[in-house]
Amino acid sequence: MSRTALPSAMIFDVFGTLVDYRTSVAREVRRAFECCGQNVDSLAFADSWRAAYEPSMEPVRSGRRPYVPLDVLHYENLCSVLRQFELAGILSHDRKIELSRAWERLDPWPDAVAGLDRLKAATLIAPCSNGSVGLMVRLARHAGFSWDCILGADIAKTYKPDPNVYLASCEALGLSPGRVMMVAAHNQDLEAAAAVGLQTGFISRPTEFGPGQTTDLSPAGDWTVTAANAVDLAGQFGL
Amino acid sequence: MSRTALPSAMIFDVFGTLVDYRTSVAREVRRAFECCGQNVDSLAFADSWRAAYEPSMEPVRSGRRPYVPLDVLHYENLCSVLRQFELAGILSHDRKIELSRAWERLDPWPDAVAGLDRLKAATLIAPCSNGSVGLMVRLARHAGFSWDCILGADIAKTYKPDPNVYLASCEALGLSPGRVMMVAAHNQDLEAAAAVGLQTGFISRPTEFGPGQTTDLSPAGDWTVTAANAVDLAGQFGL
Repeated sequence: MSRTALPSAMIFDVFGTLVDYRTSVAREVRRAFECCGQNVDSLAFADSWRAAYEPSMEPVRSGRRPYVPLDVLHYENLCSVLRQFELAGILSHDRKIELSRAWERLDPWPDAVAGLDRLKAATLIAPCSNGSVGLMVRLARHAGFSWDCILGADIAKTYKPDPNVYLASCEALGLSPGRVMMVAAHNQDLEAAAAVGLQTGFISRPTEFGPGQTTDLSPAGDWTVTAANAVDLAGQFGL
Repeated sequence: MSRTALPSAMIFDVFGTLVDYRTSVAREVRRAFECCGQNVDSLAFADSWRAAYEPSMEPVRSGRRPYVPLDVLHYENLCSVLRQFELAGILSHDRKIELSRAWERLDPWPDAVAGLDRLKAATLIAPCSNGSVGLMVRLARHAGFSWDCILGADIAKTYKPDPNVYLASCEALGLSPGRVMMVAAHNQDLEAAAAVGLQTGFISRPTEFGPGQTTDLSPAGDWTVTAANAVDLAGQFGL
């Protein structure tokens, strides 16, 4: 069986692909409301918060709103979801800020750190996420990711799947897109990266959205590699 | 004796402050010309190449030339210095490209890795250099630096000491300038950082420019901390 040649750099989607945001955000929501003795359906809260994520980036992608880091959108979306759950006014401003930064305290999928460490021994690795540099740096410290650098939205000043995010990430590394592989658990992310010439790696995360997940259960394109998880991905390069 | 409080992040000048570019570049120049049996005064060559660095950034800082990564300037300056040394035409195009990337293979000062590792155990660390992300990533692999992320010129799309380089670096981390310390062996770098509100750390590198060095031998401003080297800097925070 022939092995895929190792790219000069591998860049990774993070939320969902490397970290389990759903159960981690739910835990942070539970913690935030424990102190006030408030019972909250924390998984439903996490799902609503995540649901607000895509539409909140659209005005930035379309140019109607100047770029703001994802931390700002996370805070604004948190405020909406608090109102939606009739919890507005319960948390102090400082506690809301603290909770909005739950995305810096997400736990990695069990295979993520080991897979990245194996890949890092042989190639450059970096996140290509919609999270800001600050968010990604603090999340890396929490999760144990040893990135070479932080790429993604904050470098391009717009959000994926805008092609400029992938292109600016390759350019920062001084590499042509064909020498870089985008890795994600989301077919749409890979489609956008492939459209501007990057190699693509699909990782399955069948419980990212919870037990009833119906999308991204399998690769939907002719991706360069597909893997069951990050360790399996490294294995496909003989690592 | 009271200790200085640890900043939320420390950002570092690299060329001269953490790596000894002069002897490393000279070594790379020797290696490049060894194969053609050409004798070159490699330290003089390194000094001339470095001397071309400051003036080559000026058109970008003043807005007369659109931002190009430092890798491009290093290549252009190399071509000038080759002509100056009457060595144009000796190296093939590929060998010139290879030599222009000598700046990715600079050796760290003996204390640099140990000092950074101690600081990283307690705070965020990143380069704030004029080198591109790609250059800094490859240099980090060569020298053994474990950065949290890469900041600096490539983030701001202009060159130090333009204030935007320091401000964009703080902004990427989501930190106000007062929570970030700029560390450098160059007083001018610290002056520019201090002017926009960053804390400052001076490290002495009395042989950076060679045995006859006359500038930056001592701190020339009221810097937050001054240190003999990177390990001493960590020690001043009790690390």
